[in-house]
Amino acid sequence: MMAGVVADADVVAALKWRYACKQFDATKKIPAETWAALEASLVLTPSSFGLQPWKFFVVETPALREQLVPHAWGQRQVADASHLVVMAIKSPMTEADIDHYLDHMATVRATPVAAFAGLRKMIVGFKNNPGFSSDDWAAKQVYIALGQFMGLAALLGVDTCPMEGFVPPKFDEVLGLPALGYKSCVLVAAGYRSVEDKYAAQPKVRFPASEVVGHL
Amino acid sequence: MMAGVVADADVVAALKWRYACKQFDATKKIPAETWAALEASLVLTPSSFGLQPWKFFVVETPALREQLVPHAWGQRQVADASHLVVMAIKSPMTEADIDHYLDHMATVRATPVAAFAGLRKMIVGFKNNPGFSSDDWAAKQVYIALGQFMGLAALLGVDTCPMEGFVPPKFDEVLGLPALGYKSCVLVAAGYRSVEDKYAAQPKVRFPASEVVGHL
Repeated sequence: MMAGVVADADVVAALKWRYACKQFDATKKIPAETWAALEASLVLTPSSFGLQPWKFFVVETPALREQLVPHAWGQRQVADASHLVVMAIKSPMTEADIDHYLDHMATVRATPVAAFAGLRKMIVGFKNNPGFSSDDWAAKQVYIALGQFMGLAALLGVDTCPMEGFVPPKFDEVLGLPALGYKSCVLVAAGYRSVEDKYAAQPKVRFPASEVVGHL
Repeated sequence: MMAGVVADADVVAALKWRYACKQFDATKKIPAETWAALEASLVLTPSSFGLQPWKFFVVETPALREQLVPHAWGQRQVADASHLVVMAIKSPMTEADIDHYLDHMATVRATPVAAFAGLRKMIVGFKNNPGFSSDDWAAKQVYIALGQFMGLAALLGVDTCPMEGFVPPKFDEVLGLPALGYKSCVLVAAGYRSVEDKYAAQPKVRFPASEVVGHL
């Protein structure tokens, strides 16, 4: 059993502190070491079969970020937050992607890839299931990354704003994602709230635990 | 700016420590205060429009958990972990659900619900978009909860196992979810790894950051 590195009460306090930041202080940058921890959170996110059907595009070029604003209904978080991550899915997910993963696993675990033939068959079978949508499945995995990122950011004292309100084909076009095999899925802006963001002071709207947590 | 409650390096160390626990120590229970923090993580999870289209069923009855094992391909985590959460989506999401949320927001923010007429129109328009699937949308929100839960659990020193390998209709039937308006979506088992879980010692398989994080 590993001792936790954070107190129970601190987790709850950080989650109550967090909110969907609507107005970032454009002058405040996340320190490099903290951003490195947040990138590590993205890289280390768990996914179905471990396949990591994603890529996380950190848009740093100011002109690119300004160019994206109108494709996100004018929301300034896209340009003003310290960091903007465009979370993208691999699309489509192919057998070559599965093999790429298994090859990597073989290397990391110093095992011949032939040892994963059974696993390969299972994953391919899963992928070829008639009801299976590669994009829907990959999107759900990306949302694991989103959830982990936002929760950990709060503990690190970093504000975030998850954003579904944007035009994915336009983002894809501006960032050149289709040529790389990716489609934008969801955004997260990260940084520090502006003292002028009136949303920060609004009471959080959550259903009571008695309504959303059941005990059976 | 809030100071973080955890060090950057501790976040990374905790995420490297975590893995998909395959064998839990059935004798170890998560302390009540730590579990309360993890339930708070579920309740406080952000969601699209804040709609919280979910319910988290914590299955505590040992006989029920044993009954679920065969519907999860015999995976013992379902019965052996300290806690099992069946993460469920509201299905279908209706206009009544939207009104329920707006009514709650009106109460929390001490504002007449009529003030949210524009927001209501926007959400209903979103829901009635021809390409919109209520279940797919709600599932993605549930995966935010899953990601946040697993990340924070790691910081609290709690092991987890996310599980998509189960038969949702069977889980729904055993737990009586359809009558409540919910469908099971994904599972997470939480507790403490068994010293016998050989997976704990295996090197983590993640693509290098240079491959999954792009800088534009």
